[in-house]
Amino acid sequence: MFREDSPEEECGVLGIFAPKEDVARMAYFGLSALQHRGQEAAGIAVSDGQTLRLHKDIGLVSQVFDPLTLSKIKGDFAIGHTRYSTTGSSSARNAQPFLIDTQYGPIALAHNGNLINAAELRQELLKKGIGLSSTSDTEVMTMMLACSKGDTWFDRLKDAILHWKGAFSLVILTRDQVFAVRDPWGFHPLNVGMLPGGGHVAASEVGALRTLGCEAYREVLPGEIIALSNTAMIAFQAVPIPEQTAFCTFENIYFSRPDNVFDGKSVHAIRQRLGENLAKESPVEADVVIPVPDSSIPAAIGFSRESGIPYNDGFIKNRYIGRTFIEPNDSLRQLGIALKYNVIMENVLDKRVVMVDDSIVRGNTTGPLIQLLKAAGVKEVHLRITCPPIKHPCFMGVDMGTYDELIAHRCTVDEICRKVGADSLSYLSLQGMMSAIGREEGYCNACFTGLYPIPPTIGMTKTGFEQSIGE
Amino acid sequence: MFREDSPEEECGVLGIFAPKEDVARMAYFGLSALQHRGQEAAGIAVSDGQTLRLHKDIGLVSQVFDPLTLSKIKGDFAIGHTRYSTTGSSSARNAQPFLIDTQYGPIALAHNGNLINAAELRQELLKKGIGLSSTSDTEVMTMMLACSKGDTWFDRLKDAILHWKGAFSLVILTRDQVFAVRDPWGFHPLNVGMLPGGGHVAASEVGALRTLGCEAYREVLPGEIIALSNTAMIAFQAVPIPEQTAFCTFENIYFSRPDNVFDGKSVHAIRQRLGENLAKESPVEADVVIPVPDSSIPAAIGFSRESGIPYNDGFIKNRYIGRTFIEPNDSLRQLGIALKYNVIMENVLDKRVVMVDDSIVRGNTTGPLIQLLKAAGVKEVHLRITCPPIKHPCFMGVDMGTYDELIAHRCTVDEICRKVGADSLSYLSLQGMMSAIGREEGYCNACFTGLYPIPPTIGMTKTGFEQSIGE
Amino acid sequence: MFREDSPEEECGVLGIFAPKEDVARMAYFGLSALQHRGQEAAGIAVSDGQTLRLHKDIGLVSQVFDPLTLSKIKGDFAIGHTRYSTTGSSSARNAQPFLIDTQYGPIALAHNGNLINAAELRQELLKKGIGLSSTSDTEVMTMMLACSKGDTWFDRLKDAILHWKGAFSLVILTRDQVFAVRDPWGFHPLNVGMLPGGGHVAASEVGALRTLGCEAYREVLPGEIIALSNTAMIAFQAVPIPEQTAFCTFENIYFSRPDNVFDGKSVHAIRQRLGENLAKESPVEADVVIPVPDSSIPAAIGFSRESGIPYNDGFIKNRYIGRTFIEPNDSLRQLGIALKYNVIMENVLDKRVVMVDDSIVRGNTTGPLIQLLKAAGVKEVHLRITCPPIKHPCFMGVDMGTYDELIAHRCTVDEICRKVGADSLSYLSLQGMMSAIGREEGYCNACFTGLYPIPPTIGMTKTGFEQSIGE
Amino acid sequence: MFREDSPEEECGVLGIFAPKEDVARMAYFGLSALQHRGQEAAGIAVSDGQTLRLHKDIGLVSQVFDPLTLSKIKGDFAIGHTRYSTTGSSSARNAQPFLIDTQYGPIALAHNGNLINAAELRQELLKKGIGLSSTSDTEVMTMMLACSKGDTWFDRLKDAILHWKGAFSLVILTRDQVFAVRDPWGFHPLNVGMLPGGGHVAASEVGALRTLGCEAYREVLPGEIIALSNTAMIAFQAVPIPEQTAFCTFENIYFSRPDNVFDGKSVHAIRQRLGENLAKESPVEADVVIPVPDSSIPAAIGFSRESGIPYNDGFIKNRYIGRTFIEPNDSLRQLGIALKYNVIMENVLDKRVVMVDDSIVRGNTTGPLIQLLKAAGVKEVHLRITCPPIKHPCFMGVDMGTYDELIAHRCTVDEICRKVGADSLSYLSLQGMMSAIGREEGYCNACFTGLYPIPPTIGMTKTGFEQSIGE
Repeated sequence: MFREDSPEEECGVLGIFAPKEDVARMAYFGLSALQHRGQEAAGIAVSDGQTLRLHKDIGLVSQVFDPLTLSKIKGDFAIGHTRYSTTGSSSARNAQPFLIDTQYGPIALAHNGNLINAAELRQELLKKGIGLSSTSDTEVMTMMLACSKGDTWFDRLKDAILHWKGAFSLVILTRDQVFAVRDPWGFHPLNVGMLPGGGHVAASEVGALRTLGCEAYREVLPGEIIALSNTAMIAFQAVPIPEQTAFCTFENIYFSRPDNVFDGKSVHAIRQRLGENLAKESPVEADVVIPVPDSSIPAAIGFSRESGIPYNDGFIKNRYIGRTFIEPNDSLRQLGIALKYNVIMENVLDKRVVMVDDSIVRGNTTGPLIQLLKAAGVKEVHLRITCPPIKHPCFMGVDMGTYDELIAHRCTVDEICRKVGADSLSYLSLQGMMSAIGREEGYCNACFTGLYPIPPTIGMTKTGFEQSIGE
Repeated sequence: MFREDSPEEECGVLGIFAPKEDVARMAYFGLSALQHRGQEAAGIAVSDGQTLRLHKDIGLVSQVFDPLTLSKIKGDFAIGHTRYSTTGSSSARNAQPFLIDTQYGPIALAHNGNLINAAELRQELLKKGIGLSSTSDTEVMTMMLACSKGDTWFDRLKDAILHWKGAFSLVILTRDQVFAVRDPWGFHPLNVGMLPGGGHVAASEVGALRTLGCEAYREVLPGEIIALSNTAMIAFQAVPIPEQTAFCTFENIYFSRPDNVFDGKSVHAIRQRLGENLAKESPVEADVVIPVPDSSIPAAIGFSRESGIPYNDGFIKNRYIGRTFIEPNDSLRQLGIALKYNVIMENVLDKRVVMVDDSIVRGNTTGPLIQLLKAAGVKEVHLRITCPPIKHPCFMGVDMGTYDELIAHRCTVDEICRKVGADSLSYLSLQGMMSAIGREEGYCNACFTGLYPIPPTIGMTKTGFEQSIGE
Repeated sequence: MFREDSPEEECGVLGIFAPKEDVARMAYFGLSALQHRGQEAAGIAVSDGQTLRLHKDIGLVSQVFDPLTLSKIKGDFAIGHTRYSTTGSSSARNAQPFLIDTQYGPIALAHNGNLINAAELRQELLKKGIGLSSTSDTEVMTMMLACSKGDTWFDRLKDAILHWKGAFSLVILTRDQVFAVRDPWGFHPLNVGMLPGGGHVAASEVGALRTLGCEAYREVLPGEIIALSNTAMIAFQAVPIPEQTAFCTFENIYFSRPDNVFDGKSVHAIRQRLGENLAKESPVEADVVIPVPDSSIPAAIGFSRESGIPYNDGFIKNRYIGRTFIEPNDSLRQLGIALKYNVIMENVLDKRVVMVDDSIVRGNTTGPLIQLLKAAGVKEVHLRITCPPIKHPCFMGVDMGTYDELIAHRCTVDEICRKVGADSLSYLSLQGMMSAIGREEGYCNACFTGLYPIPPTIGMTKTGFEQSIGE
Repeated sequence: MFREDSPEEECGVLGIFAPKEDVARMAYFGLSALQHRGQEAAGIAVSDGQTLRLHKDIGLVSQVFDPLTLSKIKGDFAIGHTRYSTTGSSSARNAQPFLIDTQYGPIALAHNGNLINAAELRQELLKKGIGLSSTSDTEVMTMMLACSKGDTWFDRLKDAILHWKGAFSLVILTRDQVFAVRDPWGFHPLNVGMLPGGGHVAASEVGALRTLGCEAYREVLPGEIIALSNTAMIAFQAVPIPEQTAFCTFENIYFSRPDNVFDGKSVHAIRQRLGENLAKESPVEADVVIPVPDSSIPAAIGFSRESGIPYNDGFIKNRYIGRTFIEPNDSLRQLGIALKYNVIMENVLDKRVVMVDDSIVRGNTTGPLIQLLKAAGVKEVHLRITCPPIKHPCFMGVDMGTYDELIAHRCTVDEICRKVGADSLSYLSLQGMMSAIGREEGYCNACFTGLYPIPPTIGMTKTGFEQSIGE
């Protein structure tokens, strides 16, 4: 019952080349800055130039690693991963990075995204007589590198990348190189930065680069392969950028930490503008603007700024109750969301409240939050959502739920408004959202529009594999 | 190095009488809402009317308890505790509640605060031939109840309370009662609330009461003993309230969660007024007001509101790096605070920034935070602190550090301003602070003024005991 | 179902004074040699001359301690304990040693045995206003030392010991001394030995002394207090030895490791003589003598030697299945004892077998073992037991079970023989047993005779306390 | 320093088909009976007819599995494994069974033995483009099955087996079958038995079959594949038995539990005859025969029986100190073997002792044991070894050490006798050993003779792989 009504990201990835540094320790702190992108499993693989060593397990970064563990994986090259697991596959076997020995030497790989042709590629590998030990598309990619042709890892990577359809922000570790690779559509972010003492870092988000002290950084371009193994990075446009990129809009709406930069723009600034545009599109007479913490704070600040309605905190979120395995008893279960959110009464009592939230996915927490406000003596609740209604599932690595689960697939905006008990409900329009982002196109808005940048195919779900080797 | 520069609270306490409910499970969720008051150890003691059972250990509430553990401590009466440990005594032996069998039957006790005459009381107990298994003043209180005279626990409690000098918000469990007790000075908060299904809850903060669904609540008065064991609570003024109460100002400045109510006032509202008064007292020309997250957010909102300078986020705090046991390597150590805070550049670049913080204790994080801002291209940093300079240690259960550690004991405001690299620094005046709180007196401001409501005596530190039985 | 049908010992104790050595580490290895006396909990307390430090927990010695834990408890003086727990009180709270601070400084205590007047002493302590945190008689003893009169620990110990009725082999740690104390009846063993590099060790069994390299050793006399804190041990006869000592016969029959020396005699040699006497008293025509491993091996060797019937292994015991928490499913449950013992068929097929066992307590494993032999094709099974029928419970620290549980309390020897399916059954006579031990009196044979050396009183069980503070 | 001077076995394997039973639970108890064959890691894979599920980890069977874990892997078919790890590869990654999905569906495999052509086969797989995630030859075998041709698993297995040179006792799990496979040389044991309630079990040793209640059993023949999936087992001679089988002599000398049956003969009986033949070949005037516990007990019984010299225990072995991670301090280190073995003085004092041991590998514990005896007052020590000198390493899955480590490779018998401080030393002759076993040929005696049944080749060690993916 404590599951938040949010889309959920698959992963954060990290790659480091830092000669003379303890890269495992750096990876530990870098992954901590990517922990929000995946809290189920974590792993680090390190190369000392000769041998690749790996440690990964289920848990937060701080639970998976201790000083002893880190001391056993020393070297100059590292990749790391934090994983969010979709329901039903919370197995240690699917933790990343994947590490294998190949005819070309050892290789490890960590992945953020989802291949839509994974089932097909998997069948091709199996038919070649290759056995697969997990249900992950990442193992498929790793094995494809093992059987690619080409003289160098760079060549083989160029070859393999052409077969991968879908979202992949990758870091790859060989004996003496770290590669950062981004799919040609550019679905998810990937950045590289320079360490002041020499070496480079690649990471899903800019925050991780800054946490490690990087002084200059840029995004890995869609379709680009970047090799980190020298004073100078080597960048190569492996696949031409398609006519239309497909940056994931939801990185701006929800996933990225607000200090990230995506497609050249500050995520925090975009979220403020989302709030501003929402205030322009759907103004309302009210006394206070409150966010649903934490992700909606920048948008609520923007809404307040544009509307002139004062900004204030309305909810306190209990940060410690999220990952509990204790089931509440019956009377606590009736409290529901109140176990996790408390209203700051004095800030909302007898007021007309604008409640800003980033999105409504399944719709199971919005109603209870509004009830909490009403029970606390709020006069009116005007719900404002910083994106359009989510009507379609995602196949690119984001767990939005199925068609049946999506409330906006089943209900009109009016129906949703009644269901959640709001006095008014407005979603931001697609145009308003894209104008806040600052582009008209080049983004994947399939969850709003159903227009998938790569057409979905049968077998995209993982059910088939999981029937063979259960988790 | 990751230690925050904040005063640190000793504990949160919780008591529950809920016939026909699973009180251990309720206590679990209630303690989760008090986790911010102590993250080192947690414990729950339960009575089923006959037998008292206890589970406690080092760790967060969610680490100490699992479904199996909770299933073993069932009953109608419970008390619980979350503990912050002062340096050097992070022993499981000092975890609370304390549970003992006595001539009057079993009793358990959990405590928030500090007795300043604990050393003296401890010596008296030892001289009576009583052995003590910990260094905690809570064990002293528990043993005093075991050897008090009187016909009922209520009588014995009335007797013992007269000997206790200092801060104590207590919950006490006997076979068939839960008591909530607050010292006559009222240092730390303690509240009681009514469960809709019958029964009552006592808790350090109102947030915990609301998390458990309490519908009506009030503060336990200074010097009051309240018994929870019937449909109606029984309240008794055991010690007359002294001429001057001594509510801890820092509960308003920093400790309490902002949804708490203390001395009849909303903590969030007080913090907003602290910011407003600060803006009035120490105005400055600037472009943006930013908080040091999370505790300074309400004050920064207030500063913005009063000054008209826009409010925005300036820092992102990494929530996952706080409790790590991994030491950074040398080059990461140089980054220092940057491992934990990242600047949102676009929000502060080229701007004159008002940085609002709740307090400066040792002064070791303020400078690095300002450096982060300057490195991100901030034009000016105007530091505003929502309380006066902290010049004196606390002996009532708050870990402020020693005289030597307190930067404001050693340096003038100008010197501090230069040390931390701010372009200007203003503290809120005592008057400004008390006006935000809404009282002129009745509060303990000893850390600012050195005027201790109970004169400190020799032996208040725990060093003596710890030399006998090490931790 | 895996519970062996054996009486179970309460504890092993260890004390070390070893200047300039790492006594915690020594204690670790010493306790490992006492692990067979108690496998439920383990603890070590150490003094560095100033501070006492303690670590104890549930588990085997090797599970409770790791290098980090040991490194935190350094000093010159140590005591240690391995605990066997009676059913229902497997609580960490009852693990030993107990450590408290007293008016005379800190003290820790570890105990093997049982006080029969514990309930009475406990009530006296409670009435004095002392609270007790466990249900253990060891805490009672520790608290009595805290409130004893006298100028030195030695004096106070002399005083307290006079009030203790029952079995106690004790080690006591103060800031600068280790005491070894044995009750005047001498129920359980306690030995002291000299370290070649200086210092002394006290231990329940000689094996632990030899494991630590002691070169000379002797038994602590009944009623003797020995202080280990100098080059020379100081020994003092604190209580006169009573007319009759009451050495526990079962130490010879079963508890002690066969390399122990008890009452001046080798346990292994005694057990061989038990077998020899059994062969003399109850000869039988047979082809092979087999032990029930491991405790009956020496007696079976003796039986073979006296009878001339060849000795051989008949059973293999699975050493890894003993402490499992996995319940077998139904079809495995029917196998019962076969999960733990396998017959070596070739050694017994078509043979008349003498099966030597040390004792029959509840009688639940003897029958199944005989069935295993019969199923393997044995012609006849002649069961020989190396002690008389056990008809009475023990109140001195050995878990024999209650009257109702003891098969020999309910059934005659003939009935038992039929029940277990043996072709003949003989117990060793009391005279035969004592002649093997080499004494006619001075031993406690209450479990055979019902003649308790100290008359049992009401309240000797712990149930009363456990109702107050559950476990 | 606690490493025993014994050859060490690689593994125990187990396979179960038991319709309507909880096969995971059965596998748990079966593996417990194979724990002596490998104590580093354990694993169980189960099929419910559709999905294969796996749990494996480092630790004893009782540490790797708990009720929750077992409840997650339910089905009708299971295989299990206990692993002994050679130094340097104690990685969870090498734990077994291996489980992969293939073009033919999922498959899991567990292996006892060693392929001498593993390096070559590994290179072939890598060249095919297959990536390997471990350094284990078992993964090589599993992957070869994934890329074998043939219509059924049976066909593919017949094909693959022809390429495997070396020792392999295998159990293989598919969706609806369990296979038991033994290499044509028959190096290590493998048995199958019938469950009374229906179904069959395969296991390395007969003891495990009896622990699970099997009523009839036979050895899997060299080169045989047996399928367990029906009321009737299906057996197939996949590879013709070579002119000479190569049963591992050391299974009789040391590895197998004495209740095992190997090559049709009772291991306990063989060991007795080894002792008898040793007494015939190398008689000596002495007062007592003692074993080095536990493995030499049957041989010492045999020596005693043949020589007429009385048998007795001479050493007590501390069962709890074997797997400790605590390093002894300097003065304890000097004690060396005395930490683990104590002498039963009374049994050997002033006596001429025959000390029977199964083998001398590196020779590092024999000398200290003899010193212990001498220090305890033994008059003479006559060392008798139940096999010839070990002069050559094993490449078939037994960790004998390298040529340099083997004391008999470097020293003559006389030199060894002087080094270990014995008064006389005799090894059993090859003829004497084989006569005890009851065969003249068909056994692998390469460690004694250097005559390897399959010639060793370059690359048989695992170093190469481990340089790629470290552990």
